[in-house]
Amino acid sequence: MTTPESQPVPSTATSQPLRILITGSAGFVGSHLVERFLNEGHTVIGVDNYISGQVSNTDLFRDHPRFTFIEADVSHGIPYTGDKLDWVMHFASPASPPHYQQFPVETLMVGAQGTQNGLELAHAHGAGFFLASTSEVYGDPHVHPQPETYWGNVNPIGVRSCYDEAKRYAEAITMAYHRSRGVNTRIIRIFNTYGPRMRPDDGRVITNFVHQALRGEPLTVYGDGSQTRSFQYIDSLIEGITRLMFVEYHYPVNLGNESEITMLDLANCVSSLLNIGVEIKNFDLPIDDPTQRKPSLAISEKILGKIEQTSLDDGLKRIVCMIEHEISESVESS
Amino acid sequence: MTTPESQPVPSTATSQPLRILITGSAGFVGSHLVERFLNEGHTVIGVDNYISGQVSNTDLFRDHPRFTFIEADVSHGIPYTGDKLDWVMHFASPASPPHYQQFPVETLMVGAQGTQNGLELAHAHGAGFFLASTSEVYGDPHVHPQPETYWGNVNPIGVRSCYDEAKRYAEAITMAYHRSRGVNTRIIRIFNTYGPRMRPDDGRVITNFVHQALRGEPLTVYGDGSQTRSFQYIDSLIEGITRLMFVEYHYPVNLGNESEITMLDLANCVSSLLNIGVEIKNFDLPIDDPTQRKPSLAISEKILGKIEQTSLDDGLKRIVCMIEHEISESVESS
Repeated sequence: MTTPESQPVPSTATSQPLRILITGSAGFVGSHLVERFLNEGHTVIGVDNYISGQVSNTDLFRDHPRFTFIEADVSHGIPYTGDKLDWVMHFASPASPPHYQQFPVETLMVGAQGTQNGLELAHAHGAGFFLASTSEVYGDPHVHPQPETYWGNVNPIGVRSCYDEAKRYAEAITMAYHRSRGVNTRIIRIFNTYGPRMRPDDGRVITNFVHQALRGEPLTVYGDGSQTRSFQYIDSLIEGITRLMFVEYHYPVNLGNESEITMLDLANCVSSLLNIGVEIKNFDLPIDDPTQRKPSLAISEKILGKIEQTSLDDGLKRIVCMIEHEISESVESS
Repeated sequence: MTTPESQPVPSTATSQPLRILITGSAGFVGSHLVERFLNEGHTVIGVDNYISGQVSNTDLFRDHPRFTFIEADVSHGIPYTGDKLDWVMHFASPASPPHYQQFPVETLMVGAQGTQNGLELAHAHGAGFFLASTSEVYGDPHVHPQPETYWGNVNPIGVRSCYDEAKRYAEAITMAYHRSRGVNTRIIRIFNTYGPRMRPDDGRVITNFVHQALRGEPLTVYGDGSQTRSFQYIDSLIEGITRLMFVEYHYPVNLGNESEITMLDLANCVSSLLNIGVEIKNFDLPIDDPTQRKPSLAISEKILGKIEQTSLDDGLKRIVCMIEHEISESVESS
């Protein structure tokens, strides 16, 4: 097995300058990709329609000489007419349950038409196509941890299906373009990820807990809190993505952290980090909420090498600092 | 439970004349729907692009005063500008593995864009939308027989996924339009169906066996032939469809036959029917071929009443007669 110590896996850090179009560039993951690629000397074209992305994430790079931004809904086409692209990276989609359930049709469309428009653009440019898929394709899994060969357990007609089925479709059409039209494709299945630039209102558990704790509110736990998740810090995800671009592997690759934690333990972590008494408010489990989710990383480590993971403790400390900073700034400016 | 004897379930046979648009009108199921609706006094607009439908199926109705045909690819829009529709029935899609694997991208598109175009048209007309989904959404099932509540076991990146995932997506977007835009939707999951007007080259087992037997060739059986299917004759499917139009039920409904048969027994049936010695040629099982498939009909019978099934013996006899007739006609005309 290749390890980064013995034989570094190539990544965008060591490559010739590339021209990379990123859909969802104003989103959480997309904006970190933009940052990484710009830092490494590449040219980036960001595309977003701000349905869930944030203008502030575009503002970070707006003045960068190698960054261009196109405001567009990629489900209706990608209006790029510039020089030859090396990569089309499709990271556009609402991704948290409150967002995609607010925009079910748009979420379905960005998985189908959006993915196809990206594939067509990549095909026209002879570029690679990189699909951000999700651990949600495993649904509420009966196999634990989840290897990429597991076919999943998704409710096709449930309230989450607008996201889960859209991503399964996106994988299917990506494979179809690879098999029948020779597009050089990549597919990653992203497990729970956290870090700076997550929307405070996106309803994901880590931002929820930290905001609630800082406001002195009880932490909302769904069900009995025994359901588990595994969280990776954004840096590890970005590292995995940039390595995979240089490996000729067209099947899905899990990117995530194998460390698993119950929601109750996570609540305790956040509370002790902030040195507050833990107070929990229990709500009913949302419909079709998965009870456990943890990646098998065997394939990822085999083809990409082991990716260093920020510990949950360190990651949470960074998030708390960042959110405290944001709150103090907003208080000062008000 | 409602039974047809005690309390007839309404169907199109007893309704006021309706204006019904059918996508895939030149296909196997679509053309039988056209026939039934025309016979009952309704107005039918057929739409097909002949990617897998047959011009001969349009010719059957071309001169009918209440039939209009539009040649169009519904994935790119449904160019209907006529009077207010009562129903949009989406039956367009390649449906047999050799066809959809020949047209993977088109199959994915008719499930996504095609379904959405149908939903938009129905929404614009205040019409009902009827989705032809499939037992393939259950994939290679771990639950047997399959109730509608079973979430399935589908390989999202396999060679069959262009069909299976397209149909799962079609169900998801149909539910999304029902939930978020109030479209009056129906979803059926069609199990193996046979009858007149199946394409001789569609690769489905019954037509394969009968054609091979009549040509004196060995019957091709994949694997050891122990995999099972359950076959319904087309008339029962059409009856189920027309009843469901009058029941306000928006979740998927299985339509099929509970009688299960192994492929080897089916080969024996066909051979004995034709009074020939059975000769079998074994091939490897295709990738991701389901080992068993049988509907649970509990929901169907509860809401639609029991639908009479033509026995396999009678159905096969009709198919053999029909194919013999076609062959003799083509011999005479050659």
